[in-house]
Amino acid sequence: MVRMPAPVSSLLWRSLRVYQVYGANTDVGKTIIATILCKAARGLWPSQRTTYLKPVSTGPDEVADDRHVRRFAPEIAAKTLFQYDLAVSPHIAARSSNKSIPPDDALLAEISSYAAQQAHHGPGWLFVETAGGVHSPSPSGSTQADLYMPLRLPVILIGDSKLGGISQTISAFESLKIRGYDVETVLLFREATYNNHSYLAHYFAQRHEIPVRTVPEPPPKPLEDDDAVSDAARLSRYYDDCSQSREVQDTLSHLSARHDARVSRLGSMSAAASEKIWYPFTQQKDLTPEKIVVIDSARGDFFHTLQSKATTTSTSTTTPTNLDDPDALLQPFFDGSASWWTQGLGHGNPHLTLAAAYAAGRYGHVMFAEAIHEPALALAETLLAGLDNPRLSRVFFSDNGSTGVEVAVKMALRAARLRYGWESGTGPGRDGDGDGDEEVLGVLGLQGSYHGDTIGAMDCSEPSVYNEKVEWYEGKGFWFEYPTVECSQGAWRIKMPDGMREFGGDGTSTPGAAYPHLSAIFDVERREAAGEGRLYGRFIRTTLERLAAQGRKFGALIIEPVVLGAGGMLLVDPLFQRTLVSTVRQSAHLFGRTTPSTTINPVPVAEHNQTWTGLPVIFDEVFTGLYRFGRFSAASFLGVHPDISVHAKLLTGGLVPLSVTAASDSIFRAFASDDKSDALLHGHSYTAHPVGCQVALASLREMQRMEARGDWDWARAAHERTDSHRDPSATNHATECLAWSVWSPEFLSWVGALPTRFVGGVWALGSVLAIRLTSVDGSTGYKGSAARAVHAALLRGRVHSYGPSDQSQSRWNVHSRVLGNTLYLMTGQRTTEETVKGVESLLREVLEKACNGP
Amino acid sequence: MVRMPAPVSSLLWRSLRVYQVYGANTDVGKTIIATILCKAARGLWPSQRTTYLKPVSTGPDEVADDRHVRRFAPEIAAKTLFQYDLAVSPHIAARSSNKSIPPDDALLAEISSYAAQQAHHGPGWLFVETAGGVHSPSPSGSTQADLYMPLRLPVILIGDSKLGGISQTISAFESLKIRGYDVETVLLFREATYNNHSYLAHYFAQRHEIPVRTVPEPPPKPLEDDDAVSDAARLSRYYDDCSQSREVQDTLSHLSARHDARVSRLGSMSAAASEKIWYPFTQQKDLTPEKIVVIDSARGDFFHTLQSKATTTSTSTTTPTNLDDPDALLQPFFDGSASWWTQGLGHGNPHLTLAAAYAAGRYGHVMFAEAIHEPALALAETLLAGLDNPRLSRVFFSDNGSTGVEVAVKMALRAARLRYGWESGTGPGRDGDGDGDEEVLGVLGLQGSYHGDTIGAMDCSEPSVYNEKVEWYEGKGFWFEYPTVECSQGAWRIKMPDGMREFGGDGTSTPGAAYPHLSAIFDVERREAAGEGRLYGRFIRTTLERLAAQGRKFGALIIEPVVLGAGGMLLVDPLFQRTLVSTVRQSAHLFGRTTPSTTINPVPVAEHNQTWTGLPVIFDEVFTGLYRFGRFSAASFLGVHPDISVHAKLLTGGLVPLSVTAASDSIFRAFASDDKSDALLHGHSYTAHPVGCQVALASLREMQRMEARGDWDWARAAHERTDSHRDPSATNHATECLAWSVWSPEFLSWVGALPTRFVGGVWALGSVLAIRLTSVDGSTGYKGSAARAVHAALLRGRVHSYGPSDQSQSRWNVHSRVLGNTLYLMTGQRTTEETVKGVESLLREVLEKACNGP
Repeated sequence: MVRMPAPVSSLLWRSLRVYQVYGANTDVGKTIIATILCKAARGLWPSQRTTYLKPVSTGPDEVADDRHVRRFAPEIAAKTLFQYDLAVSPHIAARSSNKSIPPDDALLAEISSYAAQQAHHGPGWLFVETAGGVHSPSPSGSTQADLYMPLRLPVILIGDSKLGGISQTISAFESLKIRGYDVETVLLFREATYNNHSYLAHYFAQRHEIPVRTVPEPPPKPLEDDDAVSDAARLSRYYDDCSQSREVQDTLSHLSARHDARVSRLGSMSAAASEKIWYPFTQQKDLTPEKIVVIDSARGDFFHTLQSKATTTSTSTTTPTNLDDPDALLQPFFDGSASWWTQGLGHGNPHLTLAAAYAAGRYGHVMFAEAIHEPALALAETLLAGLDNPRLSRVFFSDNGSTGVEVAVKMALRAARLRYGWESGTGPGRDGDGDGDEEVLGVLGLQGSYHGDTIGAMDCSEPSVYNEKVEWYEGKGFWFEYPTVECSQGAWRIKMPDGMREFGGDGTSTPGAAYPHLSAIFDVERREAAGEGRLYGRFIRTTLERLAAQGRKFGALIIEPVVLGAGGMLLVDPLFQRTLVSTVRQSAHLFGRTTPSTTINPVPVAEHNQTWTGLPVIFDEVFTGLYRFGRFSAASFLGVHPDISVHAKLLTGGLVPLSVTAASDSIFRAFASDDKSDALLHGHSYTAHPVGCQVALASLREMQRMEARGDWDWARAAHERTDSHRDPSATNHATECLAWSVWSPEFLSWVGALPTRFVGGVWALGSVLAIRLTSVDGSTGYKGSAARAVHAALLRGRVHSYGPSDQSQSRWNVHSRVLGNTLYLMTGQRTTEETVKGVESLLREVLEKACNGP
Repeated sequence: MVRMPAPVSSLLWRSLRVYQVYGANTDVGKTIIATILCKAARGLWPSQRTTYLKPVSTGPDEVADDRHVRRFAPEIAAKTLFQYDLAVSPHIAARSSNKSIPPDDALLAEISSYAAQQAHHGPGWLFVETAGGVHSPSPSGSTQADLYMPLRLPVILIGDSKLGGISQTISAFESLKIRGYDVETVLLFREATYNNHSYLAHYFAQRHEIPVRTVPEPPPKPLEDDDAVSDAARLSRYYDDCSQSREVQDTLSHLSARHDARVSRLGSMSAAASEKIWYPFTQQKDLTPEKIVVIDSARGDFFHTLQSKATTTSTSTTTPTNLDDPDALLQPFFDGSASWWTQGLGHGNPHLTLAAAYAAGRYGHVMFAEAIHEPALALAETLLAGLDNPRLSRVFFSDNGSTGVEVAVKMALRAARLRYGWESGTGPGRDGDGDGDEEVLGVLGLQGSYHGDTIGAMDCSEPSVYNEKVEWYEGKGFWFEYPTVECSQGAWRIKMPDGMREFGGDGTSTPGAAYPHLSAIFDVERREAAGEGRLYGRFIRTTLERLAAQGRKFGALIIEPVVLGAGGMLLVDPLFQRTLVSTVRQSAHLFGRTTPSTTINPVPVAEHNQTWTGLPVIFDEVFTGLYRFGRFSAASFLGVHPDISVHAKLLTGGLVPLSVTAASDSIFRAFASDDKSDALLHGHSYTAHPVGCQVALASLREMQRMEARGDWDWARAAHERTDSHRDPSATNHATECLAWSVWSPEFLSWVGALPTRFVGGVWALGSVLAIRLTSVDGSTGYKGSAARAVHAALLRGRVHSYGPSDQSQSRWNVHSRVLGNTLYLMTGQRTTEETVKGVESLLREVLEKACNGP
């Protein structure tokens, strides 16, 4: 069994009130005020345990903060986790010491564990004091505000009462706020010259509804050493007075009330949600409140969710799930659907937050018609360069994948209509002869495709459970069957639909029954050269000829390259899609007769090779593109260039909605006219909103940097090692068609070898893993139920003890989504090897159990 | 002529390089490093003027920073604008002085003016040094980082080299960054103990690609007073050495190169955009690069745009527009369309920025299916409470108004279909008898309605120039004519369509020909009681009967309450819409026969009055709601409660896309079933994205606070004063139906009295002003051109001189959008009376000129 890292969660207990003490600067009195708070808490709640924790301390032990607390508040338990002697920033002190430097994860785990121990004692307080200012570096070098984010402890911010302290306090607050911390109160010394507290009290009340309270300044240090005793006495009296002061007691009451309110709110949210929210894609009749996941916050790959009966009732282990934290309220959950396929750079990524906030500050939103702003232009340039498609020259912005597809279809249909001279407004029944179909301008696509939920995007898909009951849905087009790829019974196989087989058998090479590795299947050029695409070509051509003979009219080919996402997480043979595109492009004669109207916007000769032929080809890369599969563009797997390409989801790295439809000049020119109503009359108010564009820009650039740096080399290398099909003399080419994944080859082989009565097949590419479970009750598609049991077991997760100490316990739960009988898991683009291994390990255990039956 | 305030713009000149020096804290060496930079700039570019400006200084004159600069860099021009003697924060020093406290606007105007003077001298440098830390308060009390935002000067951040300085520097940077500042470099003292510069150099290079450079610490102050001379000599030598140091010279080269790159990029953006962007709703054949507005940034109600030939070639005034700033590159533009109707709380609002950043830090985005997070729940609660509609109990989230409408229509059609027992999948031609219309389930609406650009939303509108050429558009429904309201020839008039008049004449009261005030027309209950609605009722009933006789099927009534936005900015008689809703609700027998299937989800008796009757009523409040017209809900003007209500645009105060579709329980229950495919199968990946929800929450709450505080009382009061129709004994009721606007009654009367050969009519409500210009060439609708000349004149704006000094010059340009022959202007919800007066003044001038002809 692999030793899995223990994800930490936001810390929250019902009765232990944990607060983090941050300082607006160093030397603002954090320890003094923390001591006062400790004493006051103990005074107000004498029967409760009050604890002081200093995770990292620098400077000689004899002046350490925990010692100060113990000295003046002996009734308080005080502890330091990591102590370095040098009185400098921890990142320097740690390196200068002989002690080991704790990695961030380990430091957080220590704090969690310590807090959990305190929670055992029942109601109480725990004050966790940071070192220096909010962004002072931790031993590892990351700044504290970043380091402690996952714990998301509510904050007591100690303001700065000195000259300049107003600025320091507000900036420190903002650095915490933009990281999702809740600053619950500001405390600072009452000082008469600069009077910072009165400005800050007004400022925080007006702007943030946060109370600012004060304590008197501590008595001045004596000038002579021998006054040390009376100094201590003065300080003792000071502490006694302060801890009994009205302002301090009000502060603690406020903190206690806020804590209770938070716990209470979390507890009531699922019930309130079940009454006030209409959920997407959910039969709410069955959605009882306890099934609603309450997400307190999220960080990196993990949700921090409220413990619920549904998830704590574990059947996969007899160990109570929360043995060591009797009433820990929050738990980490691996976000196994990458939050509906959106997460690239992880939850709560400060880099994306700052990008969003920068654009919000610089522009807010600005109208985009006939205007330009830097984030939109830079994003257009970055995207067009990244797609590396000589056809695409221009981008249209909209709000999500569905609207992006509608834009793409409007573009394509217009271009096709003008090229082939069809009249405008062709719609069902409009030709008046009543046979109802010959004037319907449709699309060509693949069966089971999904392009979005708005009516125009729905109409691009064949009738299915997603749309068959939607009143205005009317599928317009024809959808091909296609071969799919998965690993089963120890090999990678192409599964051909029955109707396609008859097109083989003329002696040419046909797709093989089994391939040693997925990369062999993705080596489309070699396979094409070997004649494996001819069967596909014949199948496609024959079908198109039949459709032409029926008088069907088409205005676009639209496909999701490589993988059909919502349609069931199906990996399509890339050679089939490649052949489909090239066949459509060579079949202009089957779609219509080019009319003189196309000469209105003549194509310059030099650009001719970029002009669309046959039909405009739309690639819906909303799910498949932008590094989902490890590459900027999914089209690159097929080695073909679409005329129109739609991007969303990962575009913004997982923060806000934004979509881009990129198009070729040849498509664009179809809308040029002296009549302004010939323009593409589509646009949303927030078109190209700067926040989205700036975030997308930051996200794409970061993913490009990751690729250039080789951040995914660990995953590539694992697949390269096992990819023995490669011709050693053709390394470059083999690297190009390498179909790698963060999911390990060993794991894939293991799943692929599970009994077919349980697992039908598996595939993984880039960040995605899909396991097709075998239906036991015959249910299929959206209504399939085979994956639900595995899904539920992942949700319950498990707790493992690896040793006697608390830290060696690790809890793993995975929040996944299923599509029919297919269970899929999806990482972000920054998910680490260690985390993937953790998920694989849990998955192995769950699948093994499920395979072996109860 | 009203004295208009002078909006300031972001400051940028081609050859004058202006930089703002911010400090990470007080006492970090801002003035010392600024002096070094001044000296170095002068040394490197000896023929260029280098200037030092301290806008606000505190402390005795003899130690003032400008004096220090003059002493050690006598070759530099140095100036302080506002000097206060007390050595405390400016907000205290200013109040303790006998001097006047400059308002923020005046302070910015002084800086702009001073900078403009420097620009007269040709190439050079201007360093503007702030006081204290980034958030240190200015004389008015606002913090500097907020105050100086509109100037958006690129920043030299002076880092803190002391203990704790790493944190201070990063936090200061973040406070600037989230306000849209570009920090171009970080400079700080080289200090060996804490070595902050080496941490910061790594941090800023890695995270922000910003160079961090150092200068040596200044020589220590002498202990004895009589060393003052040699101290000065030491300091002089220090300045000489530093200003010639490689690091400082590199810094200046970097800053100079960044400046040139910025200017160059701005100059090339419109050309690049014309090649890379496909614009929404734009015939790009006519869009030459010089017509594309380059928006550098935006603040409050103003864009800061690149001066272009198109806007500087003024024909409305003979004064050159840029007399006082020979090559000022940026100019302020009033955002007269509220950025396509999105802006509520203004561009670059720090409150919304922090809300967005907080949610980004706390969650990023988290999957919403079967999950809940605080911003989504709190927004749902706030919105439902604010709408104050007893029918609405639940919200569905989507991404924009168009998707929100599609969701609404899916909801309504399903509810109607189940109620009336129609089969699913009713679509054109599907009944097979080929007459092509009887099974089309349509909507009832108003002619000219516009609900969005996705196909499903388009299908809710009658054929028009927006959709007639869109291949998949197919209007599904029937759209009523309606009476409109405007002020013309000195009175408020209801314009009845011709076909409606025949329904009067039975002796009952009919809508009057003229009303003294708009509020009289909005007093719908009194008018209804007086029988004015009967004509409407007969017209509507007769029409519905005719449609029923034709076998037409309808599943919803969908209207934009009060005003049709994109359809032409038409104010509809609210009594007509009220009557339409009540008539539809009473006409169940004309829509279908209730079938037993409705008893599957029986309606509890207590809720019966909230159950929809006739047809589900959808209010598309995307444009009209959320304080656009001064009220939370536009439905409240009609005094009726829709069953479904759609909200977007102002929902997020103008930052990011988000939409909410609120629905009644009666609608919701239509989707409850044991079959999960009966659920509302709609959802976008970013559904209920926390950033949008948090921003919406902040925005709605702020607008509610503004209403409660009476922030718009100045506008209400102006209309109440002139609203003489009110019955003094019924003040409360009159206040309720008061139709106020930020546009002054005097201005409206003036426009309404212009010759009808020029102005057909005008109306204003809340933030919106619409002027219908009379077409001279007969062009109408989307293709109308009458408003274009006025639009162009507003764009050119004007410059006025009010006195001999520079400050009394004010430049006004207004960026507006037109809809056919209607010119509309729209403020945000925080636009001040002064700004509205400024726009009115320009508008008066432009209309007067246009009226009197060239």
